[in-house]
Amino acid sequence: MGIVMGPNQYGKAEVRIVSVNKDTPRHTIKDLNVSTSLRGDLDAVHLTGDNSNCLPTDTQKNTVYAFAKEAPIGEIEDFALRLGRHFVNTAEGITGARILIDEYSWERIPVGGTGHDHSFARSTDEKRTTAVTIDGDKAHVVSGLKDLVVLKSTGSEFWGYPKDKYTTLAETDDRILATAVTARWRYLGTDLDWGKSFESVRATMLEAFATTHSLALQQSLYEMGKQVLDAHPEVAEVRLSLPNKHHFLVDLKPFGLDNDNEVFYAADRPYGLIEGTVLRDDVDPAPQAWYSLAEF
Amino acid sequence: MGIVMGPNQYGKAEVRIVSVNKDTPRHTIKDLNVSTSLRGDLDAVHLTGDNSNCLPTDTQKNTVYAFAKEAPIGEIEDFALRLGRHFVNTAEGITGARILIDEYSWERIPVGGTGHDHSFARSTDEKRTTAVTIDGDKAHVVSGLKDLVVLKSTGSEFWGYPKDKYTTLAETDDRILATAVTARWRYLGTDLDWGKSFESVRATMLEAFATTHSLALQQSLYEMGKQVLDAHPEVAEVRLSLPNKHHFLVDLKPFGLDNDNEVFYAADRPYGLIEGTVLRDDVDPAPQAWYSLAEF
Amino acid sequence: MGIVMGPNQYGKAEVRIVSVNKDTPRHTIKDLNVSTSLRGDLDAVHLTGDNSNCLPTDTQKNTVYAFAKEAPIGEIEDFALRLGRHFVNTAEGITGARILIDEYSWERIPVGGTGHDHSFARSTDEKRTTAVTIDGDKAHVVSGLKDLVVLKSTGSEFWGYPKDKYTTLAETDDRILATAVTARWRYLGTDLDWGKSFESVRATMLEAFATTHSLALQQSLYEMGKQVLDAHPEVAEVRLSLPNKHHFLVDLKPFGLDNDNEVFYAADRPYGLIEGTVLRDDVDPAPQAWYSLAEF
Amino acid sequence: MGIVMGPNQYGKAEVRIVSVNKDTPRHTIKDLNVSTSLRGDLDAVHLTGDNSNCLPTDTQKNTVYAFAKEAPIGEIEDFALRLGRHFVNTAEGITGARILIDEYSWERIPVGGTGHDHSFARSTDEKRTTAVTIDGDKAHVVSGLKDLVVLKSTGSEFWGYPKDKYTTLAETDDRILATAVTARWRYLGTDLDWGKSFESVRATMLEAFATTHSLALQQSLYEMGKQVLDAHPEVAEVRLSLPNKHHFLVDLKPFGLDNDNEVFYAADRPYGLIEGTVLRDDVDPAPQAWYSLAEF
Repeated sequence: MGIVMGPNQYGKAEVRIVSVNKDTPRHTIKDLNVSTSLRGDLDAVHLTGDNSNCLPTDTQKNTVYAFAKEAPIGEIEDFALRLGRHFVNTAEGITGARILIDEYSWERIPVGGTGHDHSFARSTDEKRTTAVTIDGDKAHVVSGLKDLVVLKSTGSEFWGYPKDKYTTLAETDDRILATAVTARWRYLGTDLDWGKSFESVRATMLEAFATTHSLALQQSLYEMGKQVLDAHPEVAEVRLSLPNKHHFLVDLKPFGLDNDNEVFYAADRPYGLIEGTVLRDDVDPAPQAWYSLAEF
Repeated sequence: MGIVMGPNQYGKAEVRIVSVNKDTPRHTIKDLNVSTSLRGDLDAVHLTGDNSNCLPTDTQKNTVYAFAKEAPIGEIEDFALRLGRHFVNTAEGITGARILIDEYSWERIPVGGTGHDHSFARSTDEKRTTAVTIDGDKAHVVSGLKDLVVLKSTGSEFWGYPKDKYTTLAETDDRILATAVTARWRYLGTDLDWGKSFESVRATMLEAFATTHSLALQQSLYEMGKQVLDAHPEVAEVRLSLPNKHHFLVDLKPFGLDNDNEVFYAADRPYGLIEGTVLRDDVDPAPQAWYSLAEF
Repeated sequence: MGIVMGPNQYGKAEVRIVSVNKDTPRHTIKDLNVSTSLRGDLDAVHLTGDNSNCLPTDTQKNTVYAFAKEAPIGEIEDFALRLGRHFVNTAEGITGARILIDEYSWERIPVGGTGHDHSFARSTDEKRTTAVTIDGDKAHVVSGLKDLVVLKSTGSEFWGYPKDKYTTLAETDDRILATAVTARWRYLGTDLDWGKSFESVRATMLEAFATTHSLALQQSLYEMGKQVLDAHPEVAEVRLSLPNKHHFLVDLKPFGLDNDNEVFYAADRPYGLIEGTVLRDDVDPAPQAWYSLAEF
Repeated sequence: MGIVMGPNQYGKAEVRIVSVNKDTPRHTIKDLNVSTSLRGDLDAVHLTGDNSNCLPTDTQKNTVYAFAKEAPIGEIEDFALRLGRHFVNTAEGITGARILIDEYSWERIPVGGTGHDHSFARSTDEKRTTAVTIDGDKAHVVSGLKDLVVLKSTGSEFWGYPKDKYTTLAETDDRILATAVTARWRYLGTDLDWGKSFESVRATMLEAFATTHSLALQQSLYEMGKQVLDAHPEVAEVRLSLPNKHHFLVDLKPFGLDNDNEVFYAADRPYGLIEGTVLRDDVDPAPQAWYSLAEF
């Protein structure tokens, strides 16, 4: 028997890069948060502190900045693929890489009815994300979004659930349904029009949330995943994590007032948490694409 | 000589209320974070725990919810004025109130080219704010915004500053200028079209940031305040707190690359912090309107 | 081909419970953050919103509170095992449960040289954690800690790493090494003296960090895991996530000052991130014990 | 009539500095978060972007680091006084300075029964603070602490408060009282044994919280301030901000269980907020000492 080093990875997390394209006076900007992780023959650094295969995380950071200058960043999926392949192809003993990128969005500040050339306002707290895995000569792309907060003021029910001795919740045929969407979807292939696909997946997901008359947040989750898969053959599976951001009806009867689903208390904790995967049954699973990501 | 109780206030902070208007199937929502504070004859509760003048913070919370049902919330300034006057007019020993409200914004989820009737997405992390003070029969309204993140990719310089033995900063005639605007402005009067004024103040402030060729963030601050005052006779003074969110040019020379103000590192800490007031010189100051707010 | 529901779970997250033991006037308190998730036959709720197997998350929350009264909470591992087994044994269609608990620590406020009977101060931001999985009639316990911030002011080197065209980092034989430890370790068995084992694992891990002369944070990680396993036969594997909280030497030469590893800038982002597993090679893996936890 | 520049200040916020004293192999560390602000003749930088009086915030940061090397940091109050006086004495046009410092605390990691020479663990999330104001040749020191979380499991009542139509709260003679203390106290004089006074003020405040049988959180606030002033002639006034971190008794009756103040739900929002000043009536006020700090 013995004690051994198991799975591991290391890298530089949260490299904040803003890149300005000045090809014309009408600037565009890319605002990214990039995290890199390398995997491979790393027993020596753990067992004896021998760094001969340990490309410093500082060098990984430098590489992110240099790559942003050597060629236009482009879509985050392409940038992540370039970075990951570079590390696996050039670093001694490194056989895998995971590149995570979050992208912040900006819009032009309106001046005199049109968007300004070089002045921008952060448009939302929502982030577009990608998680690219390079595993030898294979590559996986799992893209997504996070911090997309949505709410339905009606069109949500919850009843017909099992009751036990600890049940106090009343059934309802009208409640507020609100959540902050974290979604990741795995792409088939690595050569796609990422921006176009992202916009379409996002719009489909939002539309599914809006138009599903919901009997359970799980049902909304499934519809969001299913409608994405229906409309996007390039997507193999969708994983969703949906906190149920409870909005409780305030009891106004003590004050002689009705409350016909009009006045709600938006609670912080605890919250429901609904997590699930929607997938095609005829596609091979790709556990390596998801390794070390949150399961949902 | 003796030890005495000095200035004080108490209340309920961060009452999170979502109110749905269902007059038609096309719902509208108000999403607020309300904090109330009461002031007055409160020596007894401090000195001996005699609560006879201490309207519970729980009751203050209930009042917020009940008021949201008794009449439409309307603009946050009007809701705050109603709440504050209610406490001062009805609570024994209470002579002053401070009501703070932050408003979150939502937009309709697009479905089939139009906004959905009852499904919404949080549109931004920016909040519209108000701080209303009731002081006996006087009332003050200080409104504002926070978490408005803006960036200029050019049109900002910084040079001509004093040098001493601790100076290492290089002068520049082109840098990124970025900040997260926290602004408060004091209104003259309590009977205004609050929504219209807010939108106009916000647009003016953004336009001033965008169009000012900036030699110092202080200059941008002043222009933002001045242009608001120029265009809004209903505003007496503007206070701004502007963190200088540094974007440092990455040194790419070690990699044989130029960096002509294209690739930046977005730093977290430390950050510059520029704070100031722009005001009319012919208006009486109103320190009570600002009491217990952050100075800037 | 078709679209199907894949792995999923749902529950109530972050049930904040404080329980006071008043058996004697010298009170003790347990302060927990409990999250429950259920797994099982849940296709119907996703596909059609049929909630007949969907024990409400509200009921799960109630169960946490009721269980805290029905018997003393005891060690968090035992409380989680009781909760998880209850759900799997009593809820129709539920075959698995994951219970996460974070425990906050308090110490008595000193009064006149001794700890007060019923007044406490939060002693640290560090949390003791457990993640218990019930999978049919099997049970797994993975305990840990998080937010344990540690620093070595010397005894850390970093050199001998590969150089490439993007390398600028200088080698060093003396640096600050600082991290915030997140650790999880899997127990063999479900009937242990949890409190005693936790204290011993924590002390071993701290001692390993302190006494390891570190050539790489990876080496410290391995020593922390290895020494825990060496001394704790009840532990099968240890997973560690260690951000390298960089402390950069400030260049004081421009001011005519030496800086012999005395004055450092504590950086926020980016940061190194070192993650790994140390395990026994003669113990069966238990992927179900880790499912839906962060990989490291 | 005209628009003019009003009060303002600018500086570098959150300079994170860790300083190691290596005079002996038994190291000591100081871990600070320093913010500097300068005030003075700064109209030109606002009105025209003329930076000739604008000592860069980058230089202010450098000065913090250099000063940490030029002499031992010592107590945070002394370090802040040195920094503030330096800026006012040397920077053209600068007549005032505000220096804020938060200090993080560390303790030695125990190894073999004793604390290690150069390995430390963050001991608590609580911070010791100071806010030093230099105003020409005058200086003010306002020190404090924040994030000190305390709880009484009994010894707190709340009743006898006014009832109105919005009252639903039940009176109680036994509840949990919990808060996170933010305190600031103004010192008379600038040449004191700061460390000794801090420890004594903190201990007095904690003891007052523990031993006061509380009829209202306001009463606890007053006692905390009063007992500090009683025992510390060097302190002129104390300002406290105490969120009432509500712990609500869980209703277990639906489950056939009593709850004799044993099981509580720790709520996040809303929370009560109790703020006040306790002061000597024979000491001159010093508004400049508090200017641009939170009022409470």
